[in-house]
Amino acid sequence: MKKQLTIGLFGFGCVGTGLYEVLNKTSLLQAEIKHIVIKDASKKRSIDASYFSNDADRILNDSEINVVVELISDAEAAYTIVKRALSSGKHVVSANKKLIAYHLDELIQLAKANGVSFLYEASVGGSIPIIRNLEEYYNNDSLSTINGIVNGTTNYILTKTGEGLSFDAALKNAQDLGFAEADPTSDVDGFDAKYKLVLLLKHAFGFTADQADVWNYGIRQLKTWDATYAREKGLKIKLIAFGTRINDQVIGFVAPQFIPASHFAYNVENEFNAVVVEALFSDRQLFLGKGAGSYPTASAVLSDISALQFDYAYEYRKTRPEEQLTLSTDFKLKVYVSATSKEALDEVPFEETIESYQGATHHYKVGWIQFKDVLNIDWNARQHLFLAVLPDGIQLNTPELEHAIVHEQLFA
Amino acid sequence: MKKQLTIGLFGFGCVGTGLYEVLNKTSLLQAEIKHIVIKDASKKRSIDASYFSNDADRILNDSEINVVVELISDAEAAYTIVKRALSSGKHVVSANKKLIAYHLDELIQLAKANGVSFLYEASVGGSIPIIRNLEEYYNNDSLSTINGIVNGTTNYILTKTGEGLSFDAALKNAQDLGFAEADPTSDVDGFDAKYKLVLLLKHAFGFTADQADVWNYGIRQLKTWDATYAREKGLKIKLIAFGTRINDQVIGFVAPQFIPASHFAYNVENEFNAVVVEALFSDRQLFLGKGAGSYPTASAVLSDISALQFDYAYEYRKTRPEEQLTLSTDFKLKVYVSATSKEALDEVPFEETIESYQGATHHYKVGWIQFKDVLNIDWNARQHLFLAVLPDGIQLNTPELEHAIVHEQLFA
Repeated sequence: MKKQLTIGLFGFGCVGTGLYEVLNKTSLLQAEIKHIVIKDASKKRSIDASYFSNDADRILNDSEINVVVELISDAEAAYTIVKRALSSGKHVVSANKKLIAYHLDELIQLAKANGVSFLYEASVGGSIPIIRNLEEYYNNDSLSTINGIVNGTTNYILTKTGEGLSFDAALKNAQDLGFAEADPTSDVDGFDAKYKLVLLLKHAFGFTADQADVWNYGIRQLKTWDATYAREKGLKIKLIAFGTRINDQVIGFVAPQFIPASHFAYNVENEFNAVVVEALFSDRQLFLGKGAGSYPTASAVLSDISALQFDYAYEYRKTRPEEQLTLSTDFKLKVYVSATSKEALDEVPFEETIESYQGATHHYKVGWIQFKDVLNIDWNARQHLFLAVLPDGIQLNTPELEHAIVHEQLFA
Repeated sequence: MKKQLTIGLFGFGCVGTGLYEVLNKTSLLQAEIKHIVIKDASKKRSIDASYFSNDADRILNDSEINVVVELISDAEAAYTIVKRALSSGKHVVSANKKLIAYHLDELIQLAKANGVSFLYEASVGGSIPIIRNLEEYYNNDSLSTINGIVNGTTNYILTKTGEGLSFDAALKNAQDLGFAEADPTSDVDGFDAKYKLVLLLKHAFGFTADQADVWNYGIRQLKTWDATYAREKGLKIKLIAFGTRINDQVIGFVAPQFIPASHFAYNVENEFNAVVVEALFSDRQLFLGKGAGSYPTASAVLSDISALQFDYAYEYRKTRPEEQLTLSTDFKLKVYVSATSKEALDEVPFEETIESYQGATHHYKVGWIQFKDVLNIDWNARQHLFLAVLPDGIQLNTPELEHAIVHEQLFA
């Protein structure tokens, strides 16, 4: 039974415009945009001015509107809108990963209490249907690990630094192309990827992480010698949102990692996103697609809207009240850390050093470091240091749990 | 509301064994295998003999069994079983692409008439959730093109021929590893891939193809010089199940294609499967995973069983009674054809020759050939010839339709 959907849209930027065109240029979906609320109602728009106002009540108090699509960038304003929309019995489709990462459980409860759906496929991986697949398809298969390239901006920059450009030149390049914002902090320091990881952890493992507890380290400090190191070893540096579950413990963080050619993510370049899902039985799966852009993101929003026609709601079946999951810091990482001076490098408390290099321009060490010690350094702010995790560079401090990571062994 | 599932299983080979272990070694799913019917009841099994009989009635006449999982290789026997199971009101989960490709619409109708589900995710791409994604996620986005590497056996062989092995040596290698059967015809001549393509065409475009009308050409005739030609041009040869829809016409065939490094499928090697989906708005998406094997295939079966707990059924929303789709032959292909003699090559009716080569061991031509003329040659049987489609090698004879293929231009 298809429902008639009448949409109130917040925001008319790149994705909102794309959604409008997708809905109005095709007959794919029986859904109508009734009103669009934007910040600046005087700004000239490509479509009929009668659609627009800056009055949120025109959507939130309109009982005919049963779907609110929230596509604004301000997470605080979005929070107010989404709460009001859910509370007044409207379904909400959002692409706002920051909003959702901050308020996930509250918004889930609110939607449930009001008997409406809260969908947000577009918030992770653009057009890649990863939330829906984690939610529906892997429901019955024990998921062990998620490896995601979920930020197109940094992946584009890393593609360019891999080709020899400096970070600054690559960032400038990305900004010129519209892939990076004037203040690139959220992207390049890994915040955006972290918000997405919080959503992945929820749908993969049933775990709600406090975003403040999830370590995010980006690529701002990457130097040309780090890119050279990777290239010489046949590796690529990718910003990876990583999550794994071992019994009741969840590990989740965002950091640059060296990726070998054998890794699924090795050839994921430029603005593409990819998520590799490892599960007990289905083995490794790669989902690859455009992580951003007007139409790809709008297509994910559209898919959520379409699902509403059939009363679809996330069921969060992996969230089990009887389980007490915790975010673990009880593991160590095998990392490469480079520094512009010996002093800077000496401050990094390696538990075990495997290699060390001293050169004219820089120094580096490769070795094991306790994750708890990693957390004591504000890496995003330490411009003389750069850290990247090496392949197979995660080891639990409790070795008897280790086997659970290597799921292939379970049935050996 | 979860249903209690009681399963009757037909077949206890690699996938059946995997399914048993998945269901019994984990608590992931509340489903129980009650009885297993196999051909040879006297064969020694790894589990309790009381599970087994060769009496299909023990499952089909047992009213407690509400799910039949059909995992036998004999498509004719499977047909009888599936029909009886659906008719007696049991849900059916099958991995039998041949059965389904031959009888798709009949089985869909039978399931509908009896109010039960007929699910077959495991029949295409092993662990890759492609049917479910086409069915659910792309429901609202205009799908234009499907490119699938859906046969792991030939992909393994092609990986080896790409490394320099002859076809015969690579086939032998695949047989030794259990990737290929003693009679490899279904795999190497592209039948298996064709059956899967028939299912993809149904779920992508809503079109039921008569499998007999879908051209399938495999890789049996591939010579070392063909692999060398590809390597020298930086291309790889992949066996591609290709489908596209242009208005009311559907193109679908299975043939070797030269794939450039920029193509998503370029790095899909060995027994991996991949499906690239192009849609109007979501752009290109790659789904990559293990296309075969005990656990990956069992995981897809398991996912179907799990979906039954929530009364899931394919809805075939893309099949619209008002549409009259036809399988088009009104196009031409840009192909490379090599031959061991000039005479053999001269028999191929090229419409336009772009390159031609004469050498000591072989000859080849590159050019355009009408698809109707391709169909007049029994390529799988012509051991002196090898054909592969070149990149961008499909062109409609009705140029005004052409733009529909290049969907990016639609919104330019």
